[in-house]
Amino acid sequence: MDDTAQYVERLGKSARRAAGDLAALNGAAKVAVLQKIAAALIENQTALLAANAEDIKAAEAAKLDPALVHRLRLDPKKIKAMADGVLQIAGQNDPVGQIIEGYVRPNGLRITKMRVPLGVVLFFYESRPNVTSDAAALCIKSGNAIILRGGKEAFHSNKAIVAIVADALKAGGLDPAAVQFVESTDRALVPQLLKLDKYIDLVIPRGGESLIRAVVKDSTIPVLKHFTGNCHLYIDAGAEAMEADVRKVCVNAKTSYPGGAVCNAVEHLLFHQDVAPKLLANVCEDLVAKGVEVRGDEATRKFFPAAKPTTTEDWDTEYLSFIVGVKVVKDMDEAIAHINEHGSHHTDGILSQNRSAIDKFVTRVDSASVMINTSTRFADGGEYGLGAEIGISTDKLHARGPMGANDLTTYKWIVSGEGHVR
Amino acid sequence: MDDTAQYVERLGKSARRAAGDLAALNGAAKVAVLQKIAAALIENQTALLAANAEDIKAAEAAKLDPALVHRLRLDPKKIKAMADGVLQIAGQNDPVGQIIEGYVRPNGLRITKMRVPLGVVLFFYESRPNVTSDAAALCIKSGNAIILRGGKEAFHSNKAIVAIVADALKAGGLDPAAVQFVESTDRALVPQLLKLDKYIDLVIPRGGESLIRAVVKDSTIPVLKHFTGNCHLYIDAGAEAMEADVRKVCVNAKTSYPGGAVCNAVEHLLFHQDVAPKLLANVCEDLVAKGVEVRGDEATRKFFPAAKPTTTEDWDTEYLSFIVGVKVVKDMDEAIAHINEHGSHHTDGILSQNRSAIDKFVTRVDSASVMINTSTRFADGGEYGLGAEIGISTDKLHARGPMGANDLTTYKWIVSGEGHVR
Repeated sequence: MDDTAQYVERLGKSARRAAGDLAALNGAAKVAVLQKIAAALIENQTALLAANAEDIKAAEAAKLDPALVHRLRLDPKKIKAMADGVLQIAGQNDPVGQIIEGYVRPNGLRITKMRVPLGVVLFFYESRPNVTSDAAALCIKSGNAIILRGGKEAFHSNKAIVAIVADALKAGGLDPAAVQFVESTDRALVPQLLKLDKYIDLVIPRGGESLIRAVVKDSTIPVLKHFTGNCHLYIDAGAEAMEADVRKVCVNAKTSYPGGAVCNAVEHLLFHQDVAPKLLANVCEDLVAKGVEVRGDEATRKFFPAAKPTTTEDWDTEYLSFIVGVKVVKDMDEAIAHINEHGSHHTDGILSQNRSAIDKFVTRVDSASVMINTSTRFADGGEYGLGAEIGISTDKLHARGPMGANDLTTYKWIVSGEGHVR
Repeated sequence: MDDTAQYVERLGKSARRAAGDLAALNGAAKVAVLQKIAAALIENQTALLAANAEDIKAAEAAKLDPALVHRLRLDPKKIKAMADGVLQIAGQNDPVGQIIEGYVRPNGLRITKMRVPLGVVLFFYESRPNVTSDAAALCIKSGNAIILRGGKEAFHSNKAIVAIVADALKAGGLDPAAVQFVESTDRALVPQLLKLDKYIDLVIPRGGESLIRAVVKDSTIPVLKHFTGNCHLYIDAGAEAMEADVRKVCVNAKTSYPGGAVCNAVEHLLFHQDVAPKLLANVCEDLVAKGVEVRGDEATRKFFPAAKPTTTEDWDTEYLSFIVGVKVVKDMDEAIAHINEHGSHHTDGILSQNRSAIDKFVTRVDSASVMINTSTRFADGGEYGLGAEIGISTDKLHARGPMGANDLTTYKWIVSGEGHVR
């Protein structure tokens, strides 16, 4: 085994060992260690900011995108927010040990379905240092060990955060291997990590589609995918009665996140043909006023000639920027079929006052989150009340949509008898 | 596209279409079609038995294992049991539309987590015709379309059963593509089916380990694995106080299924060193009296010299026959470590009257089912009250242990507002 292979093996093995102890830990001990971590983030902020400054210096030297540098940069306010996030997770109900179901069978066997940690989580994520503390806290809360592999631009910041967490774990008498950081930006490590199915129970890759596809291809460990979202809003017939809401929600869904570079921003608007003459132009003008480029199909351009023509490619595109594709549909069935075919099953919404139309849309649209008269931007763990989120699953198995601490658990069947035989 | 590729594409596409309609179907309509299927199985039993006779004739000509022929053979009693199984599933609560959680956020957004079907399930299974009707019924109940690929020995029986189901679906005004059967035993189809991630949401492979590994390797669709079980019973210090139960449970766990060829049979017994002098020989004698070959480590052979010596390989072996491996452990920690390292995380049990020992065992043993003073043979969907089971998951994600209709669902977040923006 070469050095890398040995390092990777050691990471996995020590995480597995730590996971066994963490699973058996009581809730109060976990709360105490999370509170310690929150306090230590504040106490050690000078060291943290110094480490972050190294990352920022490198990022600026490499002329990285200002939005990326903005996400990367820490300041006392952001560190306070990180600590608060950890405290918020500490204050949640402990998912471990929850009884999901429990009953007695006719033969007297007592059956209990109890929530237990998954074990070890391997987490790939973008260069955002605050995600490091969120993920560590969610895993401690849910009794899982975690191996963190953040974007290389945040290397020094992440290393400093994990050192703080490790000290807090040690001070609480816990194994610091519960939260580990891959101390190398070498890409060659990744395929090796993904073969550690003996030690790791779940991989969560966050980031670009190419990263996720590479992880799925190489991994022998189950993967929960976090693809970004090609989100839609369907504006139903009759929605002119709620024109102000329609305009407000469409603009918010497209523009409330800087640059529109977020998975829950809307990418495509579908107008019912009856409502298009009444609302399409106004909505498009509002968007243009916010700096959005509007692209439209032929029917759209009749109502809003300033729109650029769409190509068939547009409908499958997640722009992740201030561009929106607009289409006029014959009826809701066409809208539903379009969303299910071209969307990414992430978040899609309807704007309507018609109850049976809403019910049909909700039933037929095959998406993790279905929004009714609401901005798609609410599809988020924090907004759903999960505390921090470790990701937004675009898979259907295990967890769907925003994932919190509960989604990092599985369950055990506990069957108790008195010498029962079959 | 060649003929096979076209056939496979057609299977997937029609299943996806049927799944959309099935997901929107109300519960009463599903109950009605399940009742129709149950009645039709009885009404058409002459045709069904004739089809089954073809399979039996071929199986006997090929001199297949009598246990396999036994599983394959239908008779009026078995057909009645199949129909009863379908009726039992019909009578269960409808999982679709269940509200898993629902709450209002401080900003007034109403959030509902609703259970919905997965979509399309691809199911590989052994040559047991009764599994065909069980799986079809579970999928109809849970609103999923299913593509069935049973063992080739049951080809004619399965074809006849699916024809009956399709007629019942049509008579109920439903799309018969909701339940489809792969009308070819050609192995070349399998890798093609496993690439239909556009249409299929979940693959469940049941059968030998080599089949499952091949499916995992080839599939671009998520797979829920159903590995067979290397199950353990740990006999704790002090268990001599419950000698009769220990002997009864050990014998039942090993021998109650013909030939021991079942995933929830016990394969290894671990005796605490304090109890071994008191119970080991008696348990082994009971097993030998039932025709079981006992293998043991050195310490075991001191107490039971008739045991054959074990090799290190024994501990990782699922015998699936009347063989049992016996080991004496220093303490419960050694037993837990052994089970977690050598077991298959399927079903493991403790025989003990010591409450804190039981609690520790339950917490530390990382298995889908943990049995307390009970035979491992109870690890079964029917015994857990799920009605029929589609499999026993040895994965930790999504579903763990016996899987019923609920485990064939996912959920949707439904977020309802009044023009809410973020």
